[in-house]
Amino acid sequence: MESDTRPARLAALRDALARADLDALLITSLPNVRYLTGFSGSNALLVVTAKDCVLLTDFRYATQVQEELGTSATVRIESTNLWTGLWGQLASLSGAERIGFESMHLMHRDFARLLEQGARWSWRPTTDLVETLRAVKDAGELAHIERAVAMAETALRHTVPMLRAGLTEIAVAGILERHLRDAGSEEFPFPSIVASGPRSALPHARAGDRTLEMGDFVLIDFGAVTAGYCSDITRTFVLGRATDEQREVHDIVHEANLLASGALRVGMTGMAADAVARDYIHARGFGEAFGHSLGHGIGLEVHESPRLARIVESPLAAGTVVTIEPGIYRAGWGGVRIEDDVFLSDAGPRVLTGFSRALLELS
Amino acid sequence: MESDTRPARLAALRDALARADLDALLITSLPNVRYLTGFSGSNALLVVTAKDCVLLTDFRYATQVQEELGTSATVRIESTNLWTGLWGQLASLSGAERIGFESMHLMHRDFARLLEQGARWSWRPTTDLVETLRAVKDAGELAHIERAVAMAETALRHTVPMLRAGLTEIAVAGILERHLRDAGSEEFPFPSIVASGPRSALPHARAGDRTLEMGDFVLIDFGAVTAGYCSDITRTFVLGRATDEQREVHDIVHEANLLASGALRVGMTGMAADAVARDYIHARGFGEAFGHSLGHGIGLEVHESPRLARIVESPLAAGTVVTIEPGIYRAGWGGVRIEDDVFLSDAGPRVLTGFSRALLELS
Repeated sequence: MESDTRPARLAALRDALARADLDALLITSLPNVRYLTGFSGSNALLVVTAKDCVLLTDFRYATQVQEELGTSATVRIESTNLWTGLWGQLASLSGAERIGFESMHLMHRDFARLLEQGARWSWRPTTDLVETLRAVKDAGELAHIERAVAMAETALRHTVPMLRAGLTEIAVAGILERHLRDAGSEEFPFPSIVASGPRSALPHARAGDRTLEMGDFVLIDFGAVTAGYCSDITRTFVLGRATDEQREVHDIVHEANLLASGALRVGMTGMAADAVARDYIHARGFGEAFGHSLGHGIGLEVHESPRLARIVESPLAAGTVVTIEPGIYRAGWGGVRIEDDVFLSDAGPRVLTGFSRALLELS
Repeated sequence: MESDTRPARLAALRDALARADLDALLITSLPNVRYLTGFSGSNALLVVTAKDCVLLTDFRYATQVQEELGTSATVRIESTNLWTGLWGQLASLSGAERIGFESMHLMHRDFARLLEQGARWSWRPTTDLVETLRAVKDAGELAHIERAVAMAETALRHTVPMLRAGLTEIAVAGILERHLRDAGSEEFPFPSIVASGPRSALPHARAGDRTLEMGDFVLIDFGAVTAGYCSDITRTFVLGRATDEQREVHDIVHEANLLASGALRVGMTGMAADAVARDYIHARGFGEAFGHSLGHGIGLEVHESPRLARIVESPLAAGTVVTIEPGIYRAGWGGVRIEDDVFLSDAGPRVLTGFSRALLELS
């Protein structure tokens, strides 16, 4: 039985609120709500004060919310609009005057409500108060992510032998997703990417109607979800024999991946981590062809803090789980990306993904 | 070959801007961007003035955006932040002073940018300018939705014979999704719901670890996507022989579904449509057990305008496609929902979903 980590998370958030001189925080990000309370529904408002934790949701979740929350929060089921219920709840919470809201997770329309119906409180924009806590994973969270990685790798192992010319990308996604479900994945963290031939040069292609042909790169970027936690993996294969050019590009990306994973250290900036892969790819003559960031945190969301990117100056904390995903993309020719999930602690980086990174030629 | 409907859509939006006394609209909703330009990527800002249409996106979409846009908009690829690029673009557009933004699709954080870096323009919140256009489907859009309905029904037809005690809900989802992919679905419009036994009483359960047992209700709510357009269907089955109570509840929901679909008319309010099903369920003694709205529009999003709900006073337009999805949920016992997709024109309602609504007892 896992111990209940929610009280510790709430305590850490309350410390952050005190440091920010706030009496309360209104939480509108659903992953943040889930992190603090366990609630996994799609409609909720959460208010945290120094003493109270009140979750508002609607009728559809009346049963589910009781099962998921335990004693982590007081629950209010609203029959109409959650915002209407919010004002009454806030009025009943003593000492809540200066209230933070999540600037990156509140629509202008709802911000306008705060200024109108919520005018008796003093509202302050906040950024990343809960996200900063979420970036550091506890043992239970790491175990969930490792399980999500294992599910994804099991599915990929079953899918690779089925890859062949004549299948559409969408059909390949179907095979992969069926194996993800059979491995127990409760959801897909993002639309699976199966990009073949020239489409592999589109870093965010989804699966499409294109039919796989001999000689194609086949880039597969996907993940699994368990207990809400995501994995995110990419491998790029060749159908048939790789050309020298395909092999060279794959080798460079492979080496950039190993260099970057191995170099990760607590205290390193996101920028410095990104530069390890970027500088290597640049030195090998493909600098302009790596057009996205090196990686991102994974957890309850498939893209979360921290970011490993050119403009990120904050240092990596111990306990983060990040993707390492260098790539080279050449329009009209194709692309290669190799993405692993890496846990970073004071002992250094530990790569969670074990699936071979060598170029597989599928016949 | 489909004719290009984007010029007509832009013209209609420009009419709406003129009526709202706006020189331009900043569009941050990605489905709205897709509707107006065809761009299906995950990062974009779009500015529409009386003369111009400028789309900003990032490097990852450089190839894709050219393929998708044709001449529908001018494209700017930004190497860092789209917002940084926006100010330069706005400055170069003559006559753009009063600019609308999408209040329901702009985060407070980005709203703050408008007031700070964008302070030289006059910003006005708008609601539903593009959504109102999207609610009325043209012939091409209706054809896409009909194809998405056909994909979903094909997948369900292949899945039903596989349902049996001993499978987990997640395994059932895997079977269904594989058939959705084999039918050509390019994505899943939302996480498939497979809810069995008492979990069928949770209107927004996803597929979970629960194992199907004889006597269970099995509620399956899912959809397909093609060319970006969604279908959304629910059927509820019984494993083995239904009890009298299961049959009674299913019959009431079935009848409510038929009554509501048949009663839809252009000009009817969302509230009146909702009442057709709600009043019937109430009269049969289950009024409190139908705890969500009757339905919603479908299109590029699986939940869009119009809404069929208790508080919606606006009339239904000709050309909308909506779901009709009454349900009865009893905590601890189970629930039934039957959901169809219906096209509404001046000729009346046309139900797009053909899959049997009768109670299927699966042995």
